Amino acid sequence: MIKKASVVEIGPRDGFQNVKEFIPTEIKLNIIDGLVKSGYKKIQMGSFVSPKAIPQMRDSGEIAQIVLERYPNVDFFALVPNLYGAKAAVKAGLKEIAPVMSLSESHNMANVKRTCAQSIEEIRKIREELPDVKITQDIATVFGCPFEGEMSVDALVEMIGKLRDIGIHAFTLCDTVGMAYPTLVEKVFRTVKKAFPGDEFNVHIHDTRNMGILNSYIALENGVDSVQAAVGGLGGCPFAPGASGNTSSEDLVYMLNKCGCETGIDFEQLLKTAKYTKSVIDGNFSGHHINIPEKPCVVTQE
Amino acid sequence: MIKKASVVEIGPRDGFQNVKEFIPTEIKLNIIDGLVKSGYKKIQMGSFVSPKAIPQMRDSGEIAQIVLERYPNVDFFALVPNLYGAKAAVKAGLKEIAPVMSLSESHNMANVKRTCAQSIEEIRKIREELPDVKITQDIATVFGCPFEGEMSVDALVEMIGKLRDIGIHAFTLCDTVGMAYPTLVEKVFRTVKKAFPGDEFNVHIHDTRNMGILNSYIALENGVDSVQAAVGGLGGCPFAPGASGNTSSEDLVYMLNKCGCETGIDFEQLLKTAKYTKSVIDGNFSGHHINIPEKPCVVTQE
Repeated sequence: MIKKASVVEIGPRDGFQNVKEFIPTEIKLNIIDGLVKSGYKKIQMGSFVSPKAIPQMRDSGEIAQIVLERYPNVDFFALVPNLYGAKAAVKAGLKEIAPVMSLSESHNMANVKRTCAQSIEEIRKIREELPDVKITQDIATVFGCPFEGEMSVDALVEMIGKLRDIGIHAFTLCDTVGMAYPTLVEKVFRTVKKAFPGDEFNVHIHDTRNMGILNSYIALENGVDSVQAAVGGLGGCPFAPGASGNTSSEDLVYMLNKCGCETGIDFEQLLKTAKYTKSVIDGNFSGHHINIPEKPCVVTQE
Repeated sequence: MIKKASVVEIGPRDGFQNVKEFIPTEIKLNIIDGLVKSGYKKIQMGSFVSPKAIPQMRDSGEIAQIVLERYPNVDFFALVPNLYGAKAAVKAGLKEIAPVMSLSESHNMANVKRTCAQSIEEIRKIREELPDVKITQDIATVFGCPFEGEMSVDALVEMIGKLRDIGIHAFTLCDTVGMAYPTLVEKVFRTVKKAFPGDEFNVHIHDTRNMGILNSYIALENGVDSVQAAVGGLGGCPFAPGASGNTSSEDLVYMLNKCGCETGIDFEQLLKTAKYTKSVIDGNFSGHHINIPEKPCVVTQE
């Protein structure tokens, strides 16, 4: 059984960025405050992207400066698409950044308008120009691409090899559109951990096909260093009304805590934060707990 | 890894009974037809309960007679609350029935208006008066009771022992309000299979807390004989708007098929049936696949 699990909150980035209407900075800070109170030690607070591309993230610099000062014992990091964003994140005081590229050429082009080779070259520049920042590389579409379907694990190992050659040793393998499944998750983590024993591997799962909690569980069973999730299951896809987004943090933490797995996160406080988030944001919430009524519910017969 | 899994469809009973408006018999038959076409070998077609208590199930006798004639190679069974219902089910031609009682005294009283001792006495009468029918005993609240909380595994073993004394050797352990979690599911099935090696143990899971697929997976890993699920994730609780009901059949089958586990069920046909079900029934559908749009969905960044 899983004894200990590191759960990383990414709602303030992957969750918020899927909310159309701009969320006031004050509300974003209230939610981050609730997450810190819940016991989170690592939170992705936003992304340093073009305000034109993702207006929702335009206050990431301001938020970074505030939370770094308020919560010195919490690790905050941000997603960055390029060197420009990386510099802005470091300028805001962040000690860790997550550049993003896709295993799939077609998704990388659609997402960051570059070939994979061009992305690796950009990440090399980031590594060189910002030697002191921790880089945890996001690799998208590892478990499947909306254009190319299932991806090859050999191709993943090859890409990680190229990234290690430019000095990257921490990775987050992303299930971008929720195409992961248990045997694939097991194969991927067993393979990369065997190939690169000293490196850090995290997982980012989407619950699109109702396997978010199961895939996260399988990743933990196979020694993943941390599991990412979003409060309220916030996120999803603008083109998929009703479709689930990220794995719901409170559902995942509830399951792990019930299993006696040490998460360091207080479920009740987290649920309170999820309910507050739902009350102040008109988004796509797929977390189940926020839909369970206070009163016990008797089901007729079974 | 799980090589083979027996998935039992219970939507026409646990799913339909949670739909307020009466579903025309013809539509119920269309859905059962789609399930049979999908490859199901065992389907809970309804329940023989008081039409006053559950009007939705009032056509179970008619449906049983029709499907038994149409699909001789499929095992159909029904839930029965008492001897009266058991006789009606056998009269309709069913070869298997599922009487229901709860591990929890308080839920048993709320659900079937009897003490557990009175329920066992009723089941003894059913066993004696209907010696030729297969009895698969539903035990509700095994993984938790809305009134009493988590239940004792020792109490479960004791109850199964009493039921075996009256000739019952097949059981479905029910997660009535979705309180099961992986380590408990593992403990329950390891315990009962060790205590009663020759007997049949099935599982009935609700997805209330987003663990339906995970708990079903854990049950299969621990040798459960079959897993029950409902098409579209139909079901849920009349007192829990938005709360999930049973594990969604198409989500569960998709996961198992992707893992190379032999289910004998065609996912595409099942999804077609789930979408048809949603199109003709105004219910609480929690299955994720029926919410995924046809077009591939690109998520910004990860």
